[in-house]
Amino acid sequence: MNNKKTLAICPGSFDPITNGHLDIISRGAKIFDEVIVAIFDNHSKAPLFTEEERIDLISKATAHLPNVKADSSNGLLVDYAKAQDADAILRGLRAISDFEYEMQITSMNKKLEPDIETIFMMTNNQYSFLSSSIVKEVAKYDANVECLVPEVVVEAIRKKF
Amino acid sequence: MNNKKTLAICPGSFDPITNGHLDIISRGAKIFDEVIVAIFDNHSKAPLFTEEERIDLISKATAHLPNVKADSSNGLLVDYAKAQDADAILRGLRAISDFEYEMQITSMNKKLEPDIETIFMMTNNQYSFLSSSIVKEVAKYDANVECLVPEVVVEAIRKKF
Amino acid sequence: MNNKKTLAICPGSFDPITNGHLDIISRGAKIFDEVIVAIFDNHSKAPLFTEEERIDLISKATAHLPNVKADSSNGLLVDYAKAQDADAILRGLRAISDFEYEMQITSMNKKLEPDIETIFMMTNNQYSFLSSSIVKEVAKYDANVECLVPEVVVEAIRKKF
Amino acid sequence: MNNKKTLAICPGSFDPITNGHLDIISRGAKIFDEVIVAIFDNHSKAPLFTEEERIDLISKATAHLPNVKADSSNGLLVDYAKAQDADAILRGLRAISDFEYEMQITSMNKKLEPDIETIFMMTNNQYSFLSSSIVKEVAKYDANVECLVPEVVVEAIRKKF
Amino acid sequence: MNNKKTLAICPGSFDPITNGHLDIISRGAKIFDEVIVAIFDNHSKAPLFTEEERIDLISKATAHLPNVKADSSNGLLVDYAKAQDADAILRGLRAISDFEYEMQITSMNKKLEPDIETIFMMTNNQYSFLSSSIVKEVAKYDANVECLVPEVVVEAIRKKF
Amino acid sequence: MNNKKTLAICPGSFDPITNGHLDIISRGAKIFDEVIVAIFDNHSKAPLFTEEERIDLISKATAHLPNVKADSSNGLLVDYAKAQDADAILRGLRAISDFEYEMQITSMNKKLEPDIETIFMMTNNQYSFLSSSIVKEVAKYDANVECLVPEVVVEAIRKKF
Repeated sequence: MNNKKTLAICPGSFDPITNGHLDIISRGAKIFDEVIVAIFDNHSKAPLFTEEERIDLISKATAHLPNVKADSSNGLLVDYAKAQDADAILRGLRAISDFEYEMQITSMNKKLEPDIETIFMMTNNQYSFLSSSIVKEVAKYDANVECLVPEVVVEAIRKKF
Repeated sequence: MNNKKTLAICPGSFDPITNGHLDIISRGAKIFDEVIVAIFDNHSKAPLFTEEERIDLISKATAHLPNVKADSSNGLLVDYAKAQDADAILRGLRAISDFEYEMQITSMNKKLEPDIETIFMMTNNQYSFLSSSIVKEVAKYDANVECLVPEVVVEAIRKKF
Repeated sequence: MNNKKTLAICPGSFDPITNGHLDIISRGAKIFDEVIVAIFDNHSKAPLFTEEERIDLISKATAHLPNVKADSSNGLLVDYAKAQDADAILRGLRAISDFEYEMQITSMNKKLEPDIETIFMMTNNQYSFLSSSIVKEVAKYDANVECLVPEVVVEAIRKKF
Repeated sequence: MNNKKTLAICPGSFDPITNGHLDIISRGAKIFDEVIVAIFDNHSKAPLFTEEERIDLISKATAHLPNVKADSSNGLLVDYAKAQDADAILRGLRAISDFEYEMQITSMNKKLEPDIETIFMMTNNQYSFLSSSIVKEVAKYDANVECLVPEVVVEAIRKKF
Repeated sequence: MNNKKTLAICPGSFDPITNGHLDIISRGAKIFDEVIVAIFDNHSKAPLFTEEERIDLISKATAHLPNVKADSSNGLLVDYAKAQDADAILRGLRAISDFEYEMQITSMNKKLEPDIETIFMMTNNQYSFLSSSIVKEVAKYDANVECLVPEVVVEAIRKKF
Repeated sequence: MNNKKTLAICPGSFDPITNGHLDIISRGAKIFDEVIVAIFDNHSKAPLFTEEERIDLISKATAHLPNVKADSSNGLLVDYAKAQDADAILRGLRAISDFEYEMQITSMNKKLEPDIETIFMMTNNQYSFLSSSIVKEVAKYDANVECLVPEVVVEAIRKKF
C-alpha cells in the first residue's frame, strides 16, 4: 500500500440517517483515514427529507467524527467514487436480502470500475431490524423513535409529522 | 483515525490456499497497510497439508505482495487479533451460507472483543464455487486444478496424490 | 401462566383471505382461547375488496371456528394488540423471504412493546406458494381459484372480475 | 418418451434481452428440439422497448440458433404453454431471491396445469448480477453496456437514451 | 378451545442450556399453561454433559418458572409429544439455516402426527449468534461465557475444562 | 439440436431411493429420451444399503419407466457423464440450502466440463421435507415410512431394522 490516505464512500439514501447507519459509519471511520457519507437519490421514491436536509442531518449526527463528511451525487456510484479517488465503497449488511442485492450491485460496480473495492460490515445485532422506511412507518403512527435515530433526527421527524 | 499503520488478520484453515483466498488477500492488501494470513486449525478435521506446509504455500503464493505475511495460531481468533494489535479481521463472502456463519462468528467475536472490527469482501464471481474442500475432492480424482489454486499449490497437490 | 384466557391477534391485509390464511387461523385457534383476525391496511396498494367486504369474507370463512372473530384497525399493530390485551401476534411463515421480513417486524414490535410475543406457524406445504396477490393475478385471467380460497371467496372474486 | 419433438417455452419480459438471457436460451436450445422465447408483459411497469421492438431484438440476438424463435402473449403462461403443446417451461436461476419466487410460480403453474414441467438452469457466474433493470439503470448514466447485452441491443439502447 | 390446560414440548440437546434457550423457554411459559424442556439425544455427537447433568442444569436455570419442567427421551419427538398429550412443539428460530431445517422437521412431524402443532418464536437479537456449540468452543479457550449461559452453567463449564 | 437421443444423468447416493427422488426421475423421463440414475458414493458415510442393494431398489422402483436405468460409479460425476455421452445432469431442488450447494457443484462441473449442462426441477411441495437421511432416522424409531418411499423400499427397510 502506498502512503496515500485511504478514503471510503458510504452511499445510501439516508432518508433519514438512522442509528444503524451511524454504527457502520463510525466503525468505518476507524478503518479508513476519511469517510464520505454520500446521498444517492433513488428517483422512484418521494423522500421525506430534501437532499439539503439529509446532508444537514448527517453532518450534525457525525459532528463528533472529524474524518467523516457528508455529500450528495446524482451520478453513478462508481463514477463518483472514482472522481473522489476513493479506495473503497463501504456498506452495512443486515440480512440475507441485503446480501443478495449488495452482491449484485458489487459485481456490477466491479465490472464498471475494477479498481474500486466494496467492503462490508455486519450491522450490530441490535440494529438489524432498522431501516429508514421502518422509522418513517413508525413515526407516522406517532410512536417513539428515540432509540432508533440520532437525537437531531428525532427533532427533525417531529417537525415533519 | 490516528497515524498508526492499519493491520488486518485474514484467518482460515487454508488447506490449501486457493485462488479465491488469494483474490481476497490481494484486495485486502490494497486497503490495509499490513495483512497477516493466519492459519487457525479446526481440530476436527485431518488436514491434507501440515501447518508448516500451509504457511510455506501461503508465503510463496503471496510473495508478490510485500505487505502480506503468513502465520498460525492455536488460540482464539480475537485473542490473536488483539495480541497483534490488529484493527480488523478480513473475511471473504461467497454465498448465503457463508454469510450466516460469518454473522454468527462476527457477533460472538464482537461480544468477546468489541474493539476488533470484522470486514467482508465479496469473492469474485468466478471463484464463488471455490473452496479448499472442493479442490481436494477434485484432485482426488486426478482432475485438473490448475485454474483453481496458485501454481505452487498445483505442484504440492500433485506430490500428495 | 395466570388463569386469564389467552388471546392472539392474526394480522394481515387479507385481500382476500386464502386457504393458506385459513390453515394458520384454524391451527392457531387450537392453541389460543381466542383469535382475532385483524385487517391492517397497507395504504400503498389499491385493494380489490373493501375493508367491510374483507371482514365479511373472513367472518364467513371462519364461521365454523367459534373462538375466531374478524376486526380491522388503522393504527400500529402493537398498539392494537396492547389495547386488546393480547398475549401474542400469530403469523404464518411460508418461505425465507417471509422469514426475514417477519424477523424485522418482530424485532421492531418487540422494541416498541416488549410484552407482546410474536409466534409463528409454518404454512402447510400445499399452501406454501399461495398469497392473496397470486390469487388475484390468476383470477384476472379467469383461471380456476377453487382450491386456493374458501368457497365464499370464490363467489366474491367471480363478481369482481 | 414418445417421438414427438420436445418444445420449451422461455418466458420473461426481455426489456431488453441480456447476455444472461442469451446464455440460458442457447443452453436450452441444446436440450430441447425447439425453444420459444415468449414475452409476457408485466402490466405494472412502463417498458423501455415496445413488444414489437423486444421481439425484434430477441429474433436478431438468437438468429444463429435455428431452433429458437420469439413470440409474445398477454395470457397466463400455462395457458400459452398448453396451447403450444410445450413440454416444459425453461427458467434461469441467478440467486436465492430468484429461487423463492420461481418456486412459488412453479407450484402455482403445476397446480393449474400439472402436465407442464418447469426446468431451471443456473445462470453462468459471470452473468449472475445481470438483469434488464440493471442494464437500463446503467445505460441511463451513459455507462458502457457492451459486455452486458448482445450487440444489436447496444445499438437499440443508444437510440433510446 | 376446550378447557384442558395447554402443554408445549421444547425439545433440544441442551448441551448445555444457553441464555438463548432460556429466552425462548420463559417466553413460551407465558403462552402455554405448561412447558416441558425435553432432551432428545443426537447419538452422533459426544456430549459435554451427561443427560442427568443437563436435566439438572435445565431444572436449576428454570427454577423461577413454576410451569416449566425438564425431561429427556430416547424416542421420536412426535411419539413423546403424543404420549405427553402435548398441544404443541415449541422451537426458537435464530436464522435462515435454522428456518430451513425446522421447516423440514416440522413437515415430517406433521406427516407422522397431524394433531401436534409446531410453533416458533424468533430468538431475541442479542442471542441470535448463540448456540451450545459456540459456548463450548469459546469455553475451550478459557474465554468468558458469563453473558452467554445461566450462572449455574458457568460454574458447571468451569468444572469441565 | 441434432437427432441424437437426449440422455440425462440423475446422480445421488440413493440410500435408499425416496418418493422425492422418484418424482424427479419420472418427470425427467418425460423430457429426456433416456435417464440414468447413477449412484455416486460419498465415501465419508457408512451407507445403510450396499451399492448392489441400492441399484436393485432403484431398478425395481423405476420398473414402470422404460427409458430409465440404474448404474453406479466411483469416479467424478462429469467424467462419468462425458463417458456416457450425456447431454445433461438432472437434479432436484428442495430448498435454499440445496440451491447453494448445487450452485457450487454446478459451477465446478461447468469449469471441468463445459459441454455438460445441469438442469434442475423443483421437488413437488409434498416431498420438500423428504431425504434419505430423514427416512432412515424415522425408520430407526420404527415409525411408518410407507408414504415416504416406494413399496419395495418399505420392505427392504423393514428387513434392515
